[in-house]
Amino acid sequence: MQKVMIAGVGMTPFSIYKDRSTRSLAEEAIQEAVQDAGSSIHDIGAVYFGNAVGGLITGQESIRGQVAVRKTGLLDRGIPVFNIENACASGSTAVNLAWLAVASGQHEAVLAVGAEKMSHENKAVTFKALESAVDQESLDEIKAQIGSAGAGQTQSMFMDIYSAMTRKYMEKSGATPEDFARIAVKSHQAGKLNPKAQFRHEVTLEEVMQSRLISDPIRLLMCSPIGDGAAALLICSEEYAKKVGAEAVQIAASVVVSGSADGSLEPATVRAVRQAYEMAGVGPNDLDVVEVHDAAAPAEVIEYEELGLCGEGEGPAFLASGATMLGGRVPVNPSGGLISKGHPVGATGCAQLVELADQLRGRCGGRQKQGAKVALAENGGGFLGPDPAATTITILTR
Amino acid sequence: MQKVMIAGVGMTPFSIYKDRSTRSLAEEAIQEAVQDAGSSIHDIGAVYFGNAVGGLITGQESIRGQVAVRKTGLLDRGIPVFNIENACASGSTAVNLAWLAVASGQHEAVLAVGAEKMSHENKAVTFKALESAVDQESLDEIKAQIGSAGAGQTQSMFMDIYSAMTRKYMEKSGATPEDFARIAVKSHQAGKLNPKAQFRHEVTLEEVMQSRLISDPIRLLMCSPIGDGAAALLICSEEYAKKVGAEAVQIAASVVVSGSADGSLEPATVRAVRQAYEMAGVGPNDLDVVEVHDAAAPAEVIEYEELGLCGEGEGPAFLASGATMLGGRVPVNPSGGLISKGHPVGATGCAQLVELADQLRGRCGGRQKQGAKVALAENGGGFLGPDPAATTITILTR
Repeated sequence: MQKVMIAGVGMTPFSIYKDRSTRSLAEEAIQEAVQDAGSSIHDIGAVYFGNAVGGLITGQESIRGQVAVRKTGLLDRGIPVFNIENACASGSTAVNLAWLAVASGQHEAVLAVGAEKMSHENKAVTFKALESAVDQESLDEIKAQIGSAGAGQTQSMFMDIYSAMTRKYMEKSGATPEDFARIAVKSHQAGKLNPKAQFRHEVTLEEVMQSRLISDPIRLLMCSPIGDGAAALLICSEEYAKKVGAEAVQIAASVVVSGSADGSLEPATVRAVRQAYEMAGVGPNDLDVVEVHDAAAPAEVIEYEELGLCGEGEGPAFLASGATMLGGRVPVNPSGGLISKGHPVGATGCAQLVELADQLRGRCGGRQKQGAKVALAENGGGFLGPDPAATTITILTR
Repeated sequence: MQKVMIAGVGMTPFSIYKDRSTRSLAEEAIQEAVQDAGSSIHDIGAVYFGNAVGGLITGQESIRGQVAVRKTGLLDRGIPVFNIENACASGSTAVNLAWLAVASGQHEAVLAVGAEKMSHENKAVTFKALESAVDQESLDEIKAQIGSAGAGQTQSMFMDIYSAMTRKYMEKSGATPEDFARIAVKSHQAGKLNPKAQFRHEVTLEEVMQSRLISDPIRLLMCSPIGDGAAALLICSEEYAKKVGAEAVQIAASVVVSGSADGSLEPATVRAVRQAYEMAGVGPNDLDVVEVHDAAAPAEVIEYEELGLCGEGEGPAFLASGATMLGGRVPVNPSGGLISKGHPVGATGCAQLVELADQLRGRCGGRQKQGAKVALAENGGGFLGPDPAATTITILTR
């Protein structure tokens, strides 16, 4: 396996785009990534296209990637397009396949693209589409599992899933709703500094705690929003990156795991990150900056523990220490995370890596972690009940 | 890159399964493939799961593979599952990614699975879902392109696409509707001998020519049917195949290409097969047995030419020569093809390779090509207009 680099990144601002298609969003991200690398669309050998709910929201299934890229020039040589689905982890799963294509020497340069048009004039269509990332054959069991306080309070089953997970975590760790509110405050502080973020304003602890209860203890301002957007990464060999003179970072590890069928394994993140640390030859103390999948705020605190940033049950204290704030020892979600940057589901896995590649290249302005050399992204997707369906870990170095 | 083998195959009969889910179909195919290889589910390193229209027909998007395999034991170690879409070429695109995973040494043994629950109590749901494999942003242009005689005569836009392509081919080659009817007769003769085929009865030329006109010149008995089914391949290193004592065949080439955006390139099959012949070090005259994507009968004759089995414009004469019949020099679609074996879209690419692996292992009974050593499958998917969205070529040898 040869060294694999990210030589260019591109991303639309995340937002609600009433008048733009998935294609239009993908085109912008792709053009930016190719330009950033100093590459040409005609050097690209394959496209790995992540999208999660396009079929149910826009009606475009099956050949989503070919449709999205057909006007970029990428099909001028008829290169292969791989359409990858993995719920909210679609983007980083596409990255994993792109990584292998380059690592194995099959291609010199490829594109990983995550794109999602998630908004719909009828919000119920969006919520229904998101539920398709839950095992449809086990819906009754799953509803029973997430039952009790949270279930059914919201249109979004995923917030009920997160709240059930959160209540368990609170029992174990002593975490409080205020802890999760602090995550939301922190994320918005970072998002304000990210020109691509969907929300670019701060919120106070009070505002978060007084926002509408979605699924106990999760409140509206602790949730990632519905949004649209695309992100793209030009992934290539070290030789190619040098040839085009790109300022590149290395993909030191890329790992995809599935959840267990019955909750009998360690958490997916714990298994995935162990593999990734080994692959990259680093440990949690080496990380300078991290992006985690905070589709709901409590997930960030839980991830502190699962990634080994702190010990078990120490999440709330670790948060309180300020270590994960901008300016802290290891800023987590400097992009604003899913809560503030936004979460157009299929795009998220790529967007996390756009942020981290830019952090390692010192391009993040007011939210820059100075001298960052090792970065990690955790991206999760879908729900089998009791486990998530997929988790990915990507480690970047420079 | 190391040698890649198919060590085991499994497949449900193709049929309309009112009371079985995609999961149930996938489980049967997977268990059969693992057993055929003499392997164990616990040796599998990853799953590549092809499905095309599950989201729109069953409501299960995003994590289709994890849901389908969750009760097989495959998730007992939380291995990665990759959900691959590429319309009617989803199955063979999954095979391509599985092939790379083994060729690169990333995994020793993986599964490629194609599964589709395509039937729905309301046929309109199925036809609508299939249309999602056409570029939705270019529907008006595409309808204009396929216009004239055929368009709109059928519920299935794809038969209008095929009929437009067929009319062009008839002008060039002098092929007649009777030629296409002969393909249907030939396919049914083969399907009758395949215990896994959806249609296991012969039809006469007259019956085909008198069947309902679907989209001129395509008649009902020239069309692949709606159906359900699954097929699975255990793909592994040569060393692993030896270890488990499998009777294995080699994947000598696996190529995926996209169509051009504007029809400016050579046909996708021509480009893909050129690459595949080069990769495998064989030419059209070396082929002993072939499976092609005859979603409608005329496609088979067109493919004779595009694969180089005969010269340009010689398709009808080549068919008339009997070379592609069972017992001929190079039987095409000995499985019955899509018309008689059936075409549960996401499963088809894997099912073609089930047949070819069994042909190379001499397991095909009355439809066996004696002494077959080199086999080729062509699988196509989706429509960008004017080109198909994707074409794959796989060459197997033993």
